[in-house]
Amino acid sequence: MTIHYLDNSATTRVSENAAKKAYTLMTEEFANPSSLHSMGFRASKELENARDTVASALGAESSEIIFTSGGSEANCLAILGAAHAHKKRGGRIVTSALEHSSVYDTMLHLKEEGFDVVFLPTKAGGKIDIDAAFEAIDERTILVSLMHTNNEVGIINPVEELKKIIKHKNSPALIHIDAVQAFGKTDIKVSRTGCDLLTVSSHKIHGPKGVGALYIRKGVRILPLTFGGKQERKLRPGTEALPLIGAFGEAVKELNIKGTTEHVRALNTYLREQLSEIDGIVINSPEDASPYILNFSTCAVRSETMLHHLAARDVFVSSGSACSKGGKSHVLKALSLPDEVADTAIRVSFSKHNTKDDCDALIEGIRDGLSTLARR
Amino acid sequence: MTIHYLDNSATTRVSENAAKKAYTLMTEEFANPSSLHSMGFRASKELENARDTVASALGAESSEIIFTSGGSEANCLAILGAAHAHKKRGGRIVTSALEHSSVYDTMLHLKEEGFDVVFLPTKAGGKIDIDAAFEAIDERTILVSLMHTNNEVGIINPVEELKKIIKHKNSPALIHIDAVQAFGKTDIKVSRTGCDLLTVSSHKIHGPKGVGALYIRKGVRILPLTFGGKQERKLRPGTEALPLIGAFGEAVKELNIKGTTEHVRALNTYLREQLSEIDGIVINSPEDASPYILNFSTCAVRSETMLHHLAARDVFVSSGSACSKGGKSHVLKALSLPDEVADTAIRVSFSKHNTKDDCDALIEGIRDGLSTLARR
Repeated sequence: MTIHYLDNSATTRVSENAAKKAYTLMTEEFANPSSLHSMGFRASKELENARDTVASALGAESSEIIFTSGGSEANCLAILGAAHAHKKRGGRIVTSALEHSSVYDTMLHLKEEGFDVVFLPTKAGGKIDIDAAFEAIDERTILVSLMHTNNEVGIINPVEELKKIIKHKNSPALIHIDAVQAFGKTDIKVSRTGCDLLTVSSHKIHGPKGVGALYIRKGVRILPLTFGGKQERKLRPGTEALPLIGAFGEAVKELNIKGTTEHVRALNTYLREQLSEIDGIVINSPEDASPYILNFSTCAVRSETMLHHLAARDVFVSSGSACSKGGKSHVLKALSLPDEVADTAIRVSFSKHNTKDDCDALIEGIRDGLSTLARR
Repeated sequence: MTIHYLDNSATTRVSENAAKKAYTLMTEEFANPSSLHSMGFRASKELENARDTVASALGAESSEIIFTSGGSEANCLAILGAAHAHKKRGGRIVTSALEHSSVYDTMLHLKEEGFDVVFLPTKAGGKIDIDAAFEAIDERTILVSLMHTNNEVGIINPVEELKKIIKHKNSPALIHIDAVQAFGKTDIKVSRTGCDLLTVSSHKIHGPKGVGALYIRKGVRILPLTFGGKQERKLRPGTEALPLIGAFGEAVKELNIKGTTEHVRALNTYLREQLSEIDGIVINSPEDASPYILNFSTCAVRSETMLHHLAARDVFVSSGSACSKGGKSHVLKALSLPDEVADTAIRVSFSKHNTKDDCDALIEGIRDGLSTLARR
């Protein structure tokens, strides 16, 4: 059975090398990296090798990387940790309404705690309105958190503008970038983004679920969410999930950003062309979005109905973020899409494993779905 | 090369079945459990099967189990989550000085926040003084957190007494039990312990590192530490670490508490006998401690020196909790051991894989270490 898995922004298949690494670290080199004996030392070496790999991919120093249980935890730790550490400098936090729920809901929580949270509006097309950011960021602003690449429509934000604005406005704000959908897909370097904190995840780049990392620029202080052992610079206690961390390192080593992006861009272009030939379909992802994500609406069949229809043909896509599990997307809402567009949206997300065949299977499924499921 | 791994309270070798399950969930059944398509549904089924397995082992309902990134996170979530949810009922929290650092340090943090944290004293032998607990628990007490089995010396606390005390003292306190070193080693059932919250971990029972679970009795309210997706009843957002969770489930299925405990008890008895024949050795674990842990002191060679000496002979033990990574143990300190005892302590911790050979190799290593390393 050939499956057409086009839901790679939800999660990816773990590469053989990464999975084998995890297996070895579970059954052979299985010691606790904090154990003081030689087995523990070898485990600790594996941990630091993985840290070096992730750091190097981001152009960071190894001591600036801490491992977490995933992107969501890294986002929460960055935002809550920075907000609580720097509360005395001011109460304003600037973000957008297009963020992943682990940022968005954390911001709603901080708002309840009394922080002055500003949700930046978007311009036509969905990018952050950078003029509005200029207006919002002030001397009381302690944190700006923006996603690099949006997970539902693939919009790429001009995050590298933030540093200049902060300097110009004489603001003490730290910059946090959620790069979960960007890491491994475009060449993210922490110096170029000008950020202080940056979130990445393993399971979006053919590593396992359950591990991510937070870059914390040297000298930047954040507070931990949990307390206990001395692991991860006391910011993230608990026995390190070495099998996952080692596998994450392997997945990062296997990245081929340029080659994969070219491959995926060709598929994206092909799919856009094919979709444009179907009556009534609206493409929600702007032309300059990440090539890894293509969001469109049939305007005729509800997302979930179409999704099940496609799954029956072994074509797997999503209706938006997997994390919202069928709930109304706050992102599509923020983009002010008409109901018939928002309610019929389909997100296709590519990986290096996808082929033109996958696109053809999707197109055939959509055409068939439209002819059998659409109400006239 | 035969290794003599006697550091199973730090972490265990993952069983073949558990590791294979993780491998399959990484490379084949790899979808996001929150994805709405059939692949996501199958992943979600795997997730719920593992939850059923863990729940059943604890005599809990599946809806009462949430998965975390490990024991440390589960302890922090239980304690911070309960303290912050029930602050209005009173500010007193009762615990002990023998807790794992993820409890102990969290309690120090709550103390800084203004909570009235009472650290119960221990009786000779190291058990919690239950009379002191009776004194401390009052109508303003919102949480009592005690470990079932201590991780450094194996002391088993009379946790099932707490429920009666709370009732008698008309206290609204919730009971949290850290059962990380007890789960899978003695038959922990939530009803028998009378707890509201209970922590377990995977990597102490031949499951992988990076996953644990928190039992939350139906109707008990705690607050989350992180925000985002709807996973794990909104108490623990983020894509579920399915490969780890599935493997954890396999490890729980393979438990044979009665058989393994008998096996381990025989080894413990044998080792105690052998150690008692060596001059100057003091056994720190009481007779009624968990048979899985045997802590003793040579009173002649510092722990770390002996540990390295043993590791060179492929005998792996620890000097205390791996999480304290060489730092002075607050547990041994709380037991008021003389310096020469505390500074020369060795923790042996057993699993089903250990044999009499491992004990013999340890004894030989200790004898050799004493004759070559001890200062006269």
